[in-house]
Amino acid sequence: MKHGANIYKYAKQIGCRSDEIIDFSSNINLYQPQTMPNVTNADISKYADSNYKIFKKIVAQNYGVAKSQIALFNGATAGIYALLHQLKQKKVVLYAPLYGEYEKAARQSKKDIYKINRLQNIDAKVAKNSIVIFVNPSTPDGKFYKLHELFLYWKKQKCTIILDESFLEFENHPSLRKMINEYEKLYIVQSFSKFYSCAGVRIGAIFSHEKSLKKLKIPLWNISSLDVAFLQERLQDKVFYKRSLRLHSKQKQELFDILNKSKLFEEIMQSDTNFILTKSSKAEQIFSYLLKHNILTRTCDSFDFLSHKYLRFAVKDKHSHAELKKIFRSFLQTHE
Amino acid sequence: MKHGANIYKYAKQIGCRSDEIIDFSSNINLYQPQTMPNVTNADISKYADSNYKIFKKIVAQNYGVAKSQIALFNGATAGIYALLHQLKQKKVVLYAPLYGEYEKAARQSKKDIYKINRLQNIDAKVAKNSIVIFVNPSTPDGKFYKLHELFLYWKKQKCTIILDESFLEFENHPSLRKMINEYEKLYIVQSFSKFYSCAGVRIGAIFSHEKSLKKLKIPLWNISSLDVAFLQERLQDKVFYKRSLRLHSKQKQELFDILNKSKLFEEIMQSDTNFILTKSSKAEQIFSYLLKHNILTRTCDSFDFLSHKYLRFAVKDKHSHAELKKIFRSFLQTHE
Repeated sequence: MKHGANIYKYAKQIGCRSDEIIDFSSNINLYQPQTMPNVTNADISKYADSNYKIFKKIVAQNYGVAKSQIALFNGATAGIYALLHQLKQKKVVLYAPLYGEYEKAARQSKKDIYKINRLQNIDAKVAKNSIVIFVNPSTPDGKFYKLHELFLYWKKQKCTIILDESFLEFENHPSLRKMINEYEKLYIVQSFSKFYSCAGVRIGAIFSHEKSLKKLKIPLWNISSLDVAFLQERLQDKVFYKRSLRLHSKQKQELFDILNKSKLFEEIMQSDTNFILTKSSKAEQIFSYLLKHNILTRTCDSFDFLSHKYLRFAVKDKHSHAELKKIFRSFLQTHE
Repeated sequence: MKHGANIYKYAKQIGCRSDEIIDFSSNINLYQPQTMPNVTNADISKYADSNYKIFKKIVAQNYGVAKSQIALFNGATAGIYALLHQLKQKKVVLYAPLYGEYEKAARQSKKDIYKINRLQNIDAKVAKNSIVIFVNPSTPDGKFYKLHELFLYWKKQKCTIILDESFLEFENHPSLRKMINEYEKLYIVQSFSKFYSCAGVRIGAIFSHEKSLKKLKIPLWNISSLDVAFLQERLQDKVFYKRSLRLHSKQKQELFDILNKSKLFEEIMQSDTNFILTKSSKAEQIFSYLLKHNILTRTCDSFDFLSHKYLRFAVKDKHSHAELKKIFRSFLQTHE
């Protein structure tokens, strides 16, 4: 479970229903409007246009790419697996820590895996013709990197570049999407489920040069028509976009203040997206205590170069934050 | 496009909108109720239980299998590809003609492919340890086979059996599902999109012995929560079930009568499901003439052991049938 922790497993462990858990572990946009798309049975009874033309047009407008530069998958993770499976280069360089499915996909595709600790040694050398993988803003720390120089270096090394920008939309940092026009070996991974608040909707995209996408095999009818109808509407929903950004900004500040004032953490990382990474020598006790009070956070010992001292908190609504604050306070009282 | 013809391509060809075409080519239940599931954003913003426990319970009840005997995929076709990719046996025996994706999946998995003409030589020998693939009721002819004897023979030959029962629910023929308890190497492929009238919903199942499914790798979160919500409701909808069967039976008789009285076909196959295969020396002219009048049928020259003389018609609503009848009549008048 790399997107967050498994609330179903933990609910069972502490003996409650999964919807009784306040989930700070998964990084989904906290804004949840009530509007849902209006789909009739006639819309879903027929086979979809396997080119998803109308939907691709909307994605193209939204992300400033051409329709021919979009490959759609049954979730971004499915795209990652397909891409790594089909790329011929053997060497994969992971800028770690990063989203765990990249390493799993690389292993499954029998690649030779090299890791660069981007926290300490981001300028490390990369072998020619490698596949480099970078998540920006990064997980689990949420840092946005200005990649211009690294990008030039990767190009010089003739690398295939997989750049995951799934958490970019929460704050207004620039994308490298435009570079797909210039550099054929650049693949941008775009999940829609984070910003568009729909983890249950299984659509993700890879943006790349038309020539590169033509070589990519994509399964037929791999996407749900209900999901397409939903995202089609949401991508065009300007109100959703504006309210998300406003709410995100306000709540992120609130979460930061709660973490900061709790005095429980030695470090609170600056984040450029909707989650905040913390470090504390008491992280394990904090995790267990919160869980006992139905609050689930993301432990980080499965991430390279991090340890059990790190905990990640997603930005949530007022009520969840208040609850977190309360339990922090009672933790302090019982652990002093 | 093996489920039917590509209405989007043909719409472009004849210069009309895709929804102006009456589509007799795709085999979807003609009954389309107006009720759609009520899903809120909160339902889809979180990650689904990756075991899909509640949904599996409903599938289990519906098909008389245990939860542990169900593997869910992003459509039955995805299940077929995953299964053939992971089974180690090299020899694949296709009882042809059959749904075209089986051969494609077997080729992609680098199997050695053997074909048995089930129309003429169904008792042909099968090598020991082969993977045998049988669709029952069959496509594109819709015949239900009593497989008891063949099944015993396959078992004797220690074959892995892939049996596709996706078109079984339209008429009350017995399933071989129960045999998964006795024979571990039996896999039943079940598409939900045909009978439950939802081609755009990407969920399909493979039923097999618990031990066999444990060995099968299934991608994480491969199914849309919207699709799950939809099917969960529809599988339990007794009214949908009853009305479907009643409407199907009435309309199938109507279609048969229209085909029969048209005097255009030398053969009209007895069908045990929701499509009817015909043979005519004028099939190509009929296809073109119908298409010119916005009626799309399924040509069958891509099926083994059939030819351009075969056309398949799906059972449709009253209005579509009336239109077909009218165009048949005008075809006769202009082609005599």
